[in-house]
Amino acid sequence: MARRTKVYEGKAKILYEGPEPDTLVQYFKDDATAFNAEKREVIDGKGVLNNRLSEFFMVGLGQIGVPTHFIKRLNMREQLIRACEIIPLEIVVRNVAAGSMSKRLGIEEGTPLPRPIIEFCLKDDKLGDPLVTEEHIIAFNWASQQDLDDIVALSLRVNDFLSGCMLAVGIKLVDFKIEVGRVWDGDFQRLILADEISPDSCRLWDIETGKKLDKDVFRRDLGSLTDAYTEVARRLGVMPANSAPATKPHLIN
Amino acid sequence: MARRTKVYEGKAKILYEGPEPDTLVQYFKDDATAFNAEKREVIDGKGVLNNRLSEFFMVGLGQIGVPTHFIKRLNMREQLIRACEIIPLEIVVRNVAAGSMSKRLGIEEGTPLPRPIIEFCLKDDKLGDPLVTEEHIIAFNWASQQDLDDIVALSLRVNDFLSGCMLAVGIKLVDFKIEVGRVWDGDFQRLILADEISPDSCRLWDIETGKKLDKDVFRRDLGSLTDAYTEVARRLGVMPANSAPATKPHLIN
Ligand SMILES: Nc1ncnc2c1ncn2[C@@H]1O[C@H](COP(=O)(O)OP(=O)(O)OP(=O)(O)O)[C@@H](O)[C@H]1O
Ligand SMILES: Nc1ncnc2c1ncn2[C@@H]1O[C@H](COP(=O)(O)OP(=O)(O)OP(=O)(O)O)[C@@H](O)[C@H]1O
Ligand SMILES: [Mg+2]
Ligand SMILES: [Mg+2]
Repeated sequence: MARRTKVYEGKAKILYEGPEPDTLVQYFKDDATAFNAEKREVIDGKGVLNNRLSEFFMVGLGQIGVPTHFIKRLNMREQLIRACEIIPLEIVVRNVAAGSMSKRLGIEEGTPLPRPIIEFCLKDDKLGDPLVTEEHIIAFNWASQQDLDDIVALSLRVNDFLSGCMLAVGIKLVDFKIEVGRVWDGDFQRLILADEISPDSCRLWDIETGKKLDKDVFRRDLGSLTDAYTEVARRLGVMPANSAPATKPHLIN
Repeated sequence: MARRTKVYEGKAKILYEGPEPDTLVQYFKDDATAFNAEKREVIDGKGVLNNRLSEFFMVGLGQIGVPTHFIKRLNMREQLIRACEIIPLEIVVRNVAAGSMSKRLGIEEGTPLPRPIIEFCLKDDKLGDPLVTEEHIIAFNWASQQDLDDIVALSLRVNDFLSGCMLAVGIKLVDFKIEVGRVWDGDFQRLILADEISPDSCRLWDIETGKKLDKDVFRRDLGSLTDAYTEVARRLGVMPANSAPATKPHLIN
Protein backbone atom coordinates (compact mmCIF):
# COMPACT_ATOMS: atom_id res chain seq x y z
CA MET A 1 0.00 0.00 0.00
CA ALA A 2 1.46 3.37 -0.99
CA ARG A 3 2.12 5.91 1.74
CA ARG A 4 -0.92 8.13 2.06
CA THR A 5 -2.01 11.10 4.08
CA LYS A 6 -4.28 10.20 6.94
CA VAL A 7 -7.02 12.80 7.27
CA TYR A 8 -8.87 11.43 10.28
CA GLU A 9 -8.87 8.35 12.45
CA GLY A 10 -12.13 7.56 14.19
CA LYS A 11 -13.23 4.66 16.31
CA ALA A 12 -14.29 2.40 13.43
CA LYS A 13 -12.79 3.92 10.30
CA ILE A 14 -9.81 5.81 8.97
CA LEU A 15 -10.03 8.45 6.26
CA TYR A 16 -7.12 8.95 3.85
CA GLU A 17 -6.71 11.53 1.12
CA GLY A 18 -8.09 10.13 -2.12
CA PRO A 19 -6.47 9.98 -5.57
CA GLU A 20 -8.59 12.83 -6.97
CA PRO A 21 -9.56 16.17 -5.45
CA ASP A 22 -12.69 15.92 -3.31
CA THR A 23 -12.27 12.20 -2.81
CA LEU A 24 -11.29 10.23 0.27
CA VAL A 25 -10.43 6.62 0.96
CA GLN A 26 -12.52 5.19 3.79
CA TYR A 27 -10.75 2.29 5.56
CA PHE A 28 -12.92 0.02 7.76
CA LYS A 29 -11.14 -1.13 10.92
CA ASP A 30 -11.96 -4.20 13.00
CA ASP A 31 -12.30 -2.09 16.14
CA ALA A 32 -15.63 -2.18 17.93
CA THR A 33 -16.49 0.38 20.58
CA ALA A 34 -19.61 1.06 22.60
CA PHE A 35 -20.84 3.35 25.36
CA ASN A 36 -18.79 6.22 23.98
CA ALA A 37 -15.69 3.99 23.66
CA GLU A 38 -15.75 2.79 27.27
CA LYS A 39 -16.06 -0.76 25.95
CA ARG A 40 -13.69 -1.70 23.13
CA GLU A 41 -12.51 -4.83 21.34
CA VAL A 42 -10.99 -5.91 18.04
CA ILE A 43 -13.46 -8.11 16.12
CA ASP A 44 -11.72 -10.11 13.44
CA GLY A 45 -13.32 -9.45 10.04
CA LYS A 46 -15.81 -6.77 11.09
CA GLY A 47 -14.22 -4.13 8.86
CA VAL A 48 -14.37 -6.40 5.81
CA LEU A 49 -18.06 -7.14 6.38
CA ASN A 50 -19.00 -3.49 6.98
CA ASN A 51 -17.08 -2.35 3.89
CA ARG A 52 -19.05 -4.84 1.79
CA LEU A 53 -22.41 -4.19 3.40
CA SER A 54 -22.08 -0.42 3.23
CA GLU A 55 -21.19 -0.78 -0.46
CA PHE A 56 -24.27 -2.95 -1.01
CA PHE A 57 -26.68 -0.47 0.61
CA MET A 58 -25.07 2.68 -0.83
CA VAL A 59 -25.09 1.24 -4.37
CA GLY A 60 -28.72 0.17 -3.98
CA LEU A 61 -29.68 3.61 -2.67
CA GLY A 62 -27.80 5.25 -5.52
CA GLN A 63 -29.77 3.14 -7.98
CA ILE A 64 -33.08 4.43 -6.63
CA GLY A 65 -31.80 8.00 -6.80
CA VAL A 66 -30.69 8.68 -3.23
CA PRO A 67 -27.41 10.61 -3.54
CA THR A 68 -24.54 9.04 -1.59
CA HIS A 69 -20.80 9.60 -1.08
CA PHE A 70 -19.97 6.09 -2.37
CA ILE A 71 -17.83 5.96 -5.53
CA LYS A 72 -16.40 2.44 -5.56
CA ARG A 73 -14.98 -0.28 -3.39
CA LEU A 74 -11.20 -0.48 -3.70
CA ASN A 75 -10.42 -3.65 -1.79
CA MET A 76 -11.49 -5.75 1.18
CA ARG A 77 -11.30 -2.89 3.66
CA GLU A 78 -11.41 0.30 1.64
CA GLN A 79 -13.82 2.26 -0.45
CA LEU A 80 -13.40 5.45 -2.43
CA ILE A 81 -15.87 8.13 -1.36
CA ARG A 82 -16.73 11.67 -2.27
CA ALA A 83 -15.47 14.08 0.39
CA CYS A 84 -18.18 16.20 1.90
CA GLU A 85 -18.66 18.62 4.76
CA ILE A 86 -20.35 16.44 7.36
CA ILE A 87 -23.38 18.04 9.02
CA PRO A 88 -22.50 17.63 12.71
CA LEU A 89 -25.58 15.52 13.48
CA GLU A 90 -26.22 11.83 13.96
CA ILE A 91 -29.58 11.24 12.33
CA VAL A 92 -31.42 8.33 13.93
CA VAL A 93 -34.54 6.80 12.35
CA ARG A 94 -36.56 4.50 14.59
CA ASN A 95 -39.37 2.08 13.68
CA VAL A 96 -39.42 0.19 16.98
CA ALA A 97 -38.44 1.54 20.41
CA ALA A 98 -34.99 0.33 21.51
CA GLY A 99 -31.71 1.45 23.03
CA SER A 100 -31.34 5.02 24.18
CA MET A 101 -34.90 6.00 23.25
CA SER A 102 -36.39 3.20 25.34
CA LYS A 103 -34.26 4.23 28.28
CA ARG A 104 -34.82 7.96 27.87
CA LEU A 105 -38.61 7.78 27.45
CA GLY A 106 -39.39 4.63 29.44
CA ILE A 107 -40.82 2.81 26.42
CA GLU A 108 -40.26 -0.94 26.55
CA GLU A 109 -37.75 -2.16 24.01
CA GLY A 110 -39.56 -3.82 21.12
CA THR A 111 -42.61 -1.55 21.19
CA PRO A 112 -43.53 -0.68 17.60
CA LEU A 113 -43.72 3.08 17.08
CA PRO A 114 -46.88 4.65 15.65
CA ARG A 115 -44.77 6.08 12.80
CA PRO A 116 -41.06 6.33 12.08
CA ILE A 117 -39.47 8.80 14.49
CA ILE A 118 -36.41 10.79 13.48
CA GLU A 119 -34.03 12.00 16.17
CA PHE A 120 -31.06 14.32 15.80
CA CYS A 121 -28.04 14.04 18.08
CA LEU A 122 -25.15 16.45 18.08
CA LYS A 123 -22.01 14.68 16.81
CA ASP A 124 -19.77 15.36 19.79
CA ASP A 125 -18.16 12.41 21.56
CA LYS A 126 -17.04 14.57 24.50
CA LEU A 127 -20.67 15.48 25.18
CA GLY A 128 -21.86 11.91 24.51
CA ASP A 129 -23.75 12.84 21.30
CA PRO A 130 -26.65 14.57 23.11
CA LEU A 131 -30.17 14.68 21.68
CA VAL A 132 -30.99 18.07 20.13
CA THR A 133 -34.16 19.61 18.71
CA GLU A 134 -34.71 21.47 15.45
CA GLU A 135 -34.71 24.67 17.52
CA HIS A 136 -31.16 24.01 18.72
CA ILE A 137 -29.98 23.00 15.27
CA ILE A 138 -31.24 26.13 13.55
CA ALA A 139 -30.37 28.53 16.36
CA PHE A 140 -26.76 27.30 16.47
CA ASN A 141 -26.60 27.07 12.68
CA TRP A 142 -25.59 23.41 12.53
CA ALA A 143 -28.06 23.11 9.66
CA SER A 144 -30.73 25.29 8.06
CA GLN A 145 -34.45 24.59 7.98
CA GLN A 146 -34.07 23.66 4.32
CA ASP A 147 -31.25 21.25 5.21
CA LEU A 148 -33.44 19.65 7.87
CA ASP A 149 -36.35 19.25 5.48
CA ASP A 150 -34.01 17.61 2.97
CA ILE A 151 -32.49 15.40 5.69
CA VAL A 152 -35.94 14.23 6.83
CA ALA A 153 -37.00 13.40 3.26
CA LEU A 154 -33.73 11.56 2.58
CA SER A 155 -33.89 9.68 5.89
CA LEU A 156 -37.43 8.46 5.23
CA ARG A 157 -36.42 7.23 1.78
CA VAL A 158 -33.48 5.35 3.28
CA ASN A 159 -35.89 3.89 5.84
CA ASP A 160 -38.35 2.68 3.17
CA PHE A 161 -35.58 1.11 1.11
CA LEU A 162 -33.70 -0.49 3.99
CA SER A 163 -36.95 -1.77 5.54
CA GLY A 164 -37.65 -3.52 2.24
CA CYS A 165 -34.13 -4.97 2.01
CA MET A 166 -34.36 -6.33 5.51
CA LEU A 167 -37.92 -7.65 5.34
CA ALA A 168 -37.00 -9.56 2.19
CA VAL A 169 -34.40 -11.52 4.16
CA GLY A 170 -36.44 -12.04 7.30
CA ILE A 171 -35.02 -9.14 9.32
CA LYS A 172 -36.83 -6.29 11.08
CA LEU A 173 -35.17 -2.90 10.68
CA VAL A 174 -35.60 -1.56 14.21
CA ASP A 175 -33.57 1.63 13.83
CA PHE A 176 -30.49 3.05 12.13
CA LYS A 177 -28.20 6.06 12.25
CA ILE A 178 -26.92 7.97 9.24
CA GLU A 179 -24.72 10.96 8.58
CA VAL A 180 -25.25 13.47 5.82
CA GLY A 181 -22.81 15.90 4.23
CA ARG A 182 -22.76 18.96 2.02
CA VAL A 183 -21.23 18.99 -1.47
CA TRP A 184 -21.09 21.74 -4.03
CA ASP A 185 -21.74 21.30 -7.73
CA GLY A 186 -20.47 24.73 -8.73
CA ASP A 187 -22.58 27.19 -6.74
CA PHE A 188 -25.33 24.64 -6.14
CA GLN A 189 -25.16 23.05 -2.70
CA ARG A 190 -26.79 19.73 -1.96
CA LEU A 191 -26.76 17.02 0.67
CA ILE A 192 -25.57 13.45 0.23
CA LEU A 193 -25.64 10.37 2.41
CA ALA A 194 -22.19 9.80 3.93
CA ASP A 195 -20.36 7.66 6.50
CA GLU A 196 -21.63 4.04 6.45
CA ILE A 197 -24.72 1.84 6.57
CA SER A 198 -23.86 -1.43 8.27
CA PRO A 199 -24.85 -3.56 11.26
CA ASP A 200 -22.67 -1.18 13.29
CA SER A 201 -25.15 1.61 12.61
CA CYS A 202 -28.45 -0.33 12.49
CA ARG A 203 -30.51 -2.42 14.88
CA LEU A 204 -31.52 -5.61 13.07
CA TRP A 205 -33.70 -8.28 14.64
CA ASP A 206 -34.49 -11.65 13.08
CA ILE A 207 -38.23 -11.56 12.42
CA GLU A 208 -38.89 -15.14 13.51
CA THR A 209 -36.59 -15.54 16.49
CA GLY A 210 -35.98 -11.94 17.57
CA LYS A 211 -32.24 -12.71 17.49
CA LYS A 212 -30.10 -9.59 17.32
CA LEU A 213 -27.90 -9.32 14.22
CA ASP A 214 -26.24 -5.96 14.94
CA LYS A 215 -23.79 -4.17 17.23
CA ASP A 216 -25.96 -4.90 20.28
CA VAL A 217 -24.42 -8.40 20.12
CA PHE A 218 -21.18 -6.65 21.13
CA ARG A 219 -22.71 -4.00 23.41
CA ARG A 220 -24.61 -6.64 25.39
CA ASP A 221 -22.23 -9.62 25.09
CA LEU A 222 -24.71 -11.79 23.20
CA GLY A 223 -22.25 -13.94 21.27
CA SER A 224 -20.12 -13.61 18.16
CA LEU A 225 -20.41 -10.29 16.36
CA THR A 226 -18.71 -11.70 13.26
CA ASP A 227 -21.25 -14.51 13.09
CA ALA A 228 -24.12 -12.03 13.33
CA TYR A 229 -22.74 -9.71 10.62
CA THR A 230 -21.84 -12.68 8.42
CA GLU A 231 -25.43 -13.89 8.73
CA VAL A 232 -26.73 -10.50 7.51
CA ALA A 233 -24.25 -10.48 4.61
CA ARG A 234 -25.11 -14.04 3.63
CA ARG A 235 -28.83 -13.44 3.60
CA LEU A 236 -28.31 -10.45 1.34
CA GLY A 237 -26.01 -12.41 -0.96
CA VAL A 238 -23.13 -10.10 0.02
CA MET A 239 -20.07 -12.28 0.41
CA PRO A 240 -16.62 -11.24 1.58
CA ALA A 241 -14.36 -11.82 -1.42
CA ASN A 242 -12.27 -14.46 0.32
CA SER A 243 -15.10 -16.63 1.60
CA ALA A 244 -16.92 -19.50 -0.06
CA PRO A 245 -19.48 -19.98 -1.50
CA ALA A 246 -19.05 -17.60 -4.42
CA THR A 247 -22.69 -17.92 -5.47
CA LYS A 248 -25.44 -15.98 -3.77
CA PRO A 249 -27.10 -18.05 -1.08
CA HIS A 250 -30.55 -17.36 -2.45
CA LEU A 251 -29.56 -18.81 -5.80
CA ILE A 252 -28.70 -22.09 -4.10
CA ASN A 253 -32.31 -22.66 -3.13
CA MET B 1 -67.28 -22.52 0.98
CA ALA B 2 -70.48 -20.68 1.89
CA ARG B 3 -72.51 -19.17 -0.94
CA ARG B 4 -71.46 -15.60 -1.38
CA THR B 5 -72.36 -12.67 -3.53
CA LYS B 6 -69.95 -12.12 -6.39
CA VAL B 7 -69.32 -8.42 -6.85
CA TYR B 8 -66.97 -8.52 -9.84
CA GLU B 9 -65.10 -11.07 -11.86
CA GLY B 10 -61.99 -9.81 -13.61
CA LYS B 11 -59.31 -11.53 -15.62
CA ALA B 12 -57.14 -12.55 -12.67
CA LYS B 13 -59.31 -12.13 -9.58
CA ILE B 14 -62.87 -12.35 -8.31
CA LEU B 15 -64.32 -10.01 -5.70
CA TYR B 16 -66.99 -11.28 -3.27
CA GLU B 17 -68.90 -9.36 -0.64
CA GLY B 18 -67.01 -9.51 2.64
CA PRO B 19 -68.25 -10.47 6.10
CA GLU B 20 -68.31 -6.86 7.37
CA PRO B 21 -69.54 -3.67 5.69
CA ASP B 22 -66.84 -2.06 3.55
CA THR B 23 -64.91 -5.32 3.20
CA LEU B 24 -64.47 -7.61 0.20
CA VAL B 25 -62.95 -11.02 -0.32
CA GLN B 26 -60.40 -11.03 -3.12
CA TYR B 27 -60.03 -14.47 -4.75
CA PHE B 28 -56.90 -15.05 -6.87
CA LYS B 29 -57.57 -17.18 -9.97
CA ASP B 30 -55.04 -19.21 -11.93
CA ASP B 31 -55.99 -17.44 -15.17
CA ALA B 32 -53.26 -15.59 -16.99
CA THR B 33 -54.08 -13.12 -19.75
CA ALA B 34 -51.97 -10.78 -21.84
CA PHE B 35 -52.33 -8.33 -24.71
CA ASN B 36 -55.71 -7.21 -23.42
CA ALA B 37 -56.85 -10.84 -22.97
CA GLU B 38 -56.05 -11.93 -26.53
CA LYS B 39 -53.66 -14.49 -25.06
CA ARG B 40 -55.02 -16.57 -22.18
CA GLU B 41 -54.10 -19.70 -20.24
CA VAL B 42 -54.70 -21.36 -16.88
CA ILE B 43 -51.46 -21.55 -14.92
CA ASP B 44 -51.65 -24.08 -12.13
CA GLY B 45 -50.84 -22.47 -8.79
CA LYS B 46 -50.45 -18.87 -9.96
CA GLY B 47 -53.33 -17.63 -7.81
CA VAL B 48 -51.89 -19.22 -4.69
CA LEU B 49 -48.50 -17.61 -5.28
CA ASN B 50 -49.94 -14.17 -6.03
CA ASN B 51 -52.20 -14.28 -2.97
CA ARG B 52 -49.16 -15.00 -0.78
CA LEU B 53 -46.85 -12.52 -2.47
CA SER B 54 -49.40 -9.70 -2.45
CA GLU B 55 -49.95 -10.38 1.27
CA PHE B 56 -46.19 -10.22 1.86
CA PHE B 57 -45.74 -6.87 0.12
CA MET B 58 -48.94 -5.26 1.46
CA VAL B 59 -48.11 -6.26 5.04
CA GLY B 60 -44.57 -4.94 4.66
CA LEU B 61 -45.85 -1.68 3.20
CA GLY B 62 -48.39 -1.39 6.00
CA GLN B 63 -45.58 -1.78 8.52
CA ILE B 64 -43.69 1.18 7.06
CA GLY B 65 -46.87 3.26 7.12
CA VAL B 66 -48.11 3.00 3.53
CA PRO B 67 -51.90 2.56 3.81
CA THR B 68 -53.22 -0.50 1.95
CA HIS B 69 -56.52 -2.32 1.47
CA PHE B 70 -55.10 -5.56 2.91
CA ILE B 71 -56.77 -6.83 6.09
CA LYS B 72 -55.79 -10.50 6.29
CA ARG B 73 -55.25 -13.61 4.24
CA LEU B 74 -58.16 -16.04 4.60
CA ASN B 75 -56.82 -19.12 2.85
CA MET B 76 -54.64 -20.24 -0.04
CA ARG B 77 -56.48 -18.19 -2.65
CA GLU B 78 -58.37 -15.49 -0.76
CA GLN B 79 -57.66 -12.40 1.23
CA LEU B 80 -59.96 -10.02 3.09
CA ILE B 81 -59.57 -6.45 1.86
CA ARG B 82 -61.06 -3.08 2.63
CA ALA B 83 -63.46 -2.02 -0.11
CA CYS B 84 -62.55 1.24 -1.75
CA GLU B 85 -63.58 3.35 -4.72
CA ILE B 86 -60.88 2.54 -7.25
CA ILE B 87 -59.40 5.57 -9.00
CA PRO B 88 -59.79 4.58 -12.66
CA LEU B 89 -56.06 4.71 -13.37
CA GLU B 90 -53.32 2.13 -13.72
CA ILE B 91 -50.31 3.74 -12.11
CA VAL B 92 -47.05 2.49 -13.61
CA VAL B 93 -43.67 3.20 -12.00
CA ARG B 94 -40.64 2.50 -14.17
CA ASN B 95 -36.96 2.29 -13.20
CA VAL B 96 -35.73 0.69 -16.42
CA ALA B 97 -37.27 1.04 -19.89
CA ALA B 98 -39.26 -2.04 -20.91
CA GLY B 99 -42.52 -3.19 -22.42
CA SER B 100 -44.96 -0.62 -23.72
CA MET B 101 -42.73 2.34 -22.87
CA SER B 102 -39.82 0.93 -24.85
CA LYS B 103 -42.08 0.35 -27.82
CA ARG B 104 -43.90 3.70 -27.57
CA LEU B 105 -40.78 5.84 -27.18
CA GLY B 106 -38.23 3.71 -29.04
CA ILE B 107 -36.03 3.25 -25.98
CA GLU B 108 -34.23 -0.07 -25.94
CA GLU B 109 -35.53 -2.46 -23.33
CA GLY B 110 -33.13 -2.57 -20.40
CA THR B 111 -32.07 1.08 -20.59
CA PRO B 112 -31.90 2.46 -17.03
CA LEU B 113 -34.03 5.59 -16.68
CA PRO B 114 -32.48 8.82 -15.37
CA ARG B 115 -35.05 8.78 -12.56
CA PRO B 116 -38.18 6.77 -11.78
CA ILE B 117 -40.91 7.68 -14.28
CA ILE B 118 -44.56 7.46 -13.31
CA GLU B 119 -47.14 6.88 -16.03
CA PHE B 120 -50.92 6.95 -15.72
CA CYS B 121 -53.12 4.82 -17.94
CA LEU B 122 -56.88 5.01 -18.01
CA LYS B 123 -58.33 1.74 -16.64
CA ASP B 124 -60.49 0.82 -19.61
CA ASP B 125 -59.96 -2.56 -21.24
CA LYS B 126 -62.12 -1.64 -24.24
CA LEU B 127 -59.76 1.25 -25.02
CA GLY B 128 -56.67 -0.84 -24.21
CA ASP B 129 -55.78 1.16 -21.07
CA PRO B 130 -54.49 4.21 -22.97
CA LEU B 131 -51.76 6.49 -21.61
CA VAL B 132 -53.18 9.74 -20.20
CA THR B 133 -51.59 12.93 -18.89
CA GLU B 134 -52.32 14.88 -15.71
CA GLU B 135 -54.20 17.35 -17.93
CA HIS B 136 -56.64 14.63 -19.04
CA ILE B 137 -57.02 13.25 -15.54
CA ILE B 138 -57.91 16.58 -13.96
CA ALA B 139 -60.02 17.85 -16.86
CA PHE B 140 -62.16 14.70 -16.88
CA ASN B 141 -62.21 14.57 -13.08
CA TRP B 142 -60.81 11.04 -12.78
CA ALA B 143 -58.70 12.38 -9.92
CA SER B 144 -57.92 15.80 -8.44
CA GLN B 145 -54.53 17.50 -8.38
CA GLN B 146 -54.34 16.67 -4.67
CA ASP B 147 -55.12 13.01 -5.42
CA LEU B 148 -52.37 12.96 -8.05
CA ASP B 149 -49.85 14.50 -5.66
CA ASP B 150 -50.77 11.88 -3.06
CA ILE B 151 -50.59 9.10 -5.67
CA VAL B 152 -47.12 10.19 -6.81
CA ALA B 153 -45.84 10.31 -3.22
CA LEU B 154 -47.34 6.90 -2.43
CA SER B 155 -46.03 5.36 -5.67
CA LEU B 156 -42.49 6.55 -4.99
CA ARG B 157 -42.60 5.10 -1.48
CA VAL B 158 -43.77 1.77 -2.87
CA ASN B 159 -40.94 1.94 -5.41
CA ASP B 160 -38.30 2.58 -2.72
CA PHE B 161 -39.59 -0.26 -0.56
CA LEU B 162 -40.09 -2.79 -3.36
CA SER B 163 -36.70 -1.92 -4.89
CA GLY B 164 -35.14 -2.76 -1.53
CA CYS B 165 -37.07 -6.03 -1.20
CA MET B 166 -36.01 -7.11 -4.64
CA LEU B 167 -32.37 -6.00 -4.46
CA ALA B 168 -32.01 -7.96 -1.22
CA VAL B 169 -32.87 -11.16 -3.08
CA GLY B 170 -30.87 -10.48 -6.24
CA ILE B 171 -33.72 -9.10 -8.34
CA LYS B 172 -33.97 -5.80 -10.25
CA LEU B 173 -37.35 -4.08 -9.95
CA VAL B 174 -37.76 -2.89 -13.55
CA ASP B 175 -41.31 -1.55 -13.26
CA PHE B 176 -44.64 -2.22 -11.58
CA LYS B 177 -48.29 -1.20 -11.79
CA ILE B 178 -50.49 -0.34 -8.84
CA GLU B 179 -54.08 0.74 -8.28
CA VAL B 180 -55.20 3.18 -5.63
CA GLY B 181 -58.64 3.71 -4.13
CA ARG B 182 -60.57 6.20 -2.03
CA VAL B 183 -61.85 5.44 1.46
CA TRP B 184 -63.69 7.64 3.91
CA ASP B 185 -62.96 7.84 7.61
CA GLY B 186 -66.05 9.83 8.48
CA ASP B 187 -65.81 12.99 6.36
CA PHE B 188 -62.09 12.61 5.84
CA GLN B 189 -61.20 11.09 2.48
CA ARG B 190 -57.89 9.39 1.85
CA LEU B 191 -56.23 7.12 -0.66
CA ILE B 192 -55.02 3.58 -0.05
CA LEU B 193 -53.07 1.07 -2.10
CA ALA B 194 -55.47 -1.51 -3.57
CA ASP B 195 -55.58 -4.44 -6.01
CA GLU B 196 -52.38 -6.54 -5.84
CA ILE B 197 -48.60 -6.44 -5.90
CA SER B 198 -47.28 -9.63 -7.47
CA PRO B 199 -45.16 -10.85 -10.38
CA ASP B 200 -48.32 -10.36 -12.49
CA SER B 201 -48.02 -6.61 -11.95
CA CYS B 202 -44.23 -6.15 -11.78
CA ARG B 203 -41.29 -6.68 -14.12
CA LEU B 204 -38.58 -8.54 -12.19
CA TRP B 205 -35.22 -9.43 -13.67
CA ASP B 206 -32.59 -11.58 -11.98
CA ILE B 207 -29.65 -9.22 -11.39
CA GLU B 208 -26.94 -11.72 -12.34
CA THR B 209 -28.50 -13.55 -15.26
CA GLY B 210 -31.16 -11.10 -16.48
CA LYS B 211 -33.67 -13.95 -16.33
CA LYS B 212 -37.26 -12.74 -16.24
CA LEU B 213 -39.22 -13.73 -13.15
CA ASP B 214 -42.56 -12.08 -13.98
CA LYS B 215 -45.55 -12.22 -16.31
CA ASP B 216 -43.34 -11.62 -19.35
CA VAL B 217 -42.47 -15.34 -19.03
CA PHE B 218 -46.09 -15.93 -20.06
CA ARG B 219 -46.44 -13.00 -22.48
CA ARG B 220 -43.29 -14.01 -24.37
CA ASP B 221 -43.40 -17.82 -23.92
CA LEU B 222 -40.14 -17.98 -21.97
CA GLY B 223 -40.85 -21.11 -19.93
CA SER B 224 -42.79 -22.00 -16.79
CA LEU B 225 -44.58 -19.10 -15.14
CA THR B 226 -45.14 -21.12 -11.97
CA ASP B 227 -41.42 -21.83 -11.72
CA ALA B 228 -40.62 -18.12 -12.09
CA TYR B 229 -43.15 -16.99 -9.46
CA THR B 230 -42.11 -19.82 -7.13
CA GLU B 231 -38.52 -18.63 -7.43
CA VAL B 232 -39.54 -15.10 -6.38
CA ALA B 233 -41.58 -16.46 -3.45
CA ARG B 234 -38.76 -18.74 -2.33
CA ARG B 235 -36.14 -16.03 -2.37
CA LEU B 236 -38.40 -13.86 -0.23
CA GLY B 237 -39.09 -16.72 2.17
CA VAL B 238 -42.77 -16.66 1.14
CA MET B 239 -43.88 -20.26 0.90
CA PRO B 240 -47.25 -21.56 -0.24
CA ALA B 241 -48.71 -23.26 2.84
CA ASN B 242 -48.73 -26.69 1.26
CA SER B 243 -45.16 -26.75 0.01
CA ALA B 244 -41.99 -27.89 1.74
CA PRO B 245 -39.67 -26.67 3.16
CA ALA B 246 -41.53 -24.92 5.96
CA THR B 247 -38.49 -22.88 6.99
CA LYS B 248 -37.45 -19.79 5.13
CA PRO B 249 -34.82 -20.57 2.53
CA HIS B 250 -32.50 -17.87 3.83
CA LEU B 251 -32.46 -19.54 7.22
CA ILE B 252 -31.15 -22.72 5.64
CA ASN B 253 -27.96 -21.02 4.58
N1 LIG C 1 -17.92 11.43 2.67
C1 LIG C 1 -17.33 11.88 3.79
N2 LIG C 1 -16.61 13.01 3.78
C2 LIG C 1 -16.00 13.46 4.92
N3 LIG C 1 -16.08 12.84 6.11
C3 LIG C 1 -16.78 11.70 6.17
C4 LIG C 1 -17.45 11.15 5.03
N4 LIG C 1 -18.09 10.04 5.42
C5 LIG C 1 -17.85 9.87 6.73
N5 LIG C 1 -17.06 10.85 7.21
C6 LIG C 1 -16.55 10.99 8.57
O1 LIG C 1 -15.52 10.02 8.72
C7 LIG C 1 -15.43 9.63 10.07
C8 LIG C 1 -15.50 8.13 10.10
O2 LIG C 1 -14.82 7.64 11.18
P1 LIG C 1 -15.52 6.89 12.40
O3 LIG C 1 -16.94 6.52 12.06
O4 LIG C 1 -14.60 5.83 12.86
O5 LIG C 1 -15.58 8.10 13.44
P2 LIG C 1 -16.08 7.97 14.93
O6 LIG C 1 -15.07 7.43 15.84
O7 LIG C 1 -17.44 7.29 14.88
O8 LIG C 1 -16.23 9.44 15.29
P3 LIG C 1 -17.31 10.39 14.75
O9 LIG C 1 -18.06 10.74 15.99
O10 LIG C 1 -16.55 11.52 14.12
O11 LIG C 1 -18.14 9.60 13.75
C9 LIG C 1 -16.59 10.25 10.81
O12 LIG C 1 -16.14 11.41 11.48
C10 LIG C 1 -17.52 10.68 9.68
O13 LIG C 1 -18.31 11.78 10.02
N1 LIG D 1 -59.87 -2.73 -2.34
C1 LIG D 1 -60.61 -2.79 -3.45
N2 LIG D 1 -61.87 -2.31 -3.48
C2 LIG D 1 -62.61 -2.36 -4.62
N3 LIG D 1 -62.15 -2.87 -5.78
C3 LIG D 1 -60.89 -3.34 -5.82
C4 LIG D 1 -60.06 -3.33 -4.67
N4 LIG D 1 -58.87 -3.86 -5.00
C5 LIG D 1 -58.93 -4.19 -6.30
N5 LIG D 1 -60.16 -3.89 -6.82
C6 LIG D 1 -60.63 -4.14 -8.19
O1 LIG D 1 -60.86 -5.53 -8.27
C7 LIG D 1 -60.67 -5.97 -9.60
C8 LIG D 1 -59.70 -7.12 -9.58
O2 LIG D 1 -59.94 -7.97 -10.65
P1 LIG D 1 -58.90 -8.18 -11.84
O3 LIG D 1 -57.57 -7.60 -11.50
O4 LIG D 1 -59.00 -9.60 -12.24
O5 LIG D 1 -59.58 -7.25 -12.93
P2 LIG D 1 -59.05 -7.08 -14.42
O6 LIG D 1 -59.53 -8.14 -15.31
O7 LIG D 1 -57.59 -6.81 -14.34
O8 LIG D 1 -59.84 -5.83 -14.82
P3 LIG D 1 -59.56 -4.40 -14.34
O9 LIG D 1 -59.15 -3.71 -15.59
O10 LIG D 1 -60.84 -3.94 -13.73
O11 LIG D 1 -58.41 -4.49 -13.33
C9 LIG D 1 -60.11 -4.79 -10.38
O12 LIG D 1 -61.16 -4.19 -11.10
C10 LIG D 1 -59.63 -3.86 -9.28
O13 LIG D 1 -59.68 -2.51 -9.68
MG1 LIG E 1 -18.69 7.24 13.25
MG1 LIG F 1 -56.58 -6.02 -12.71
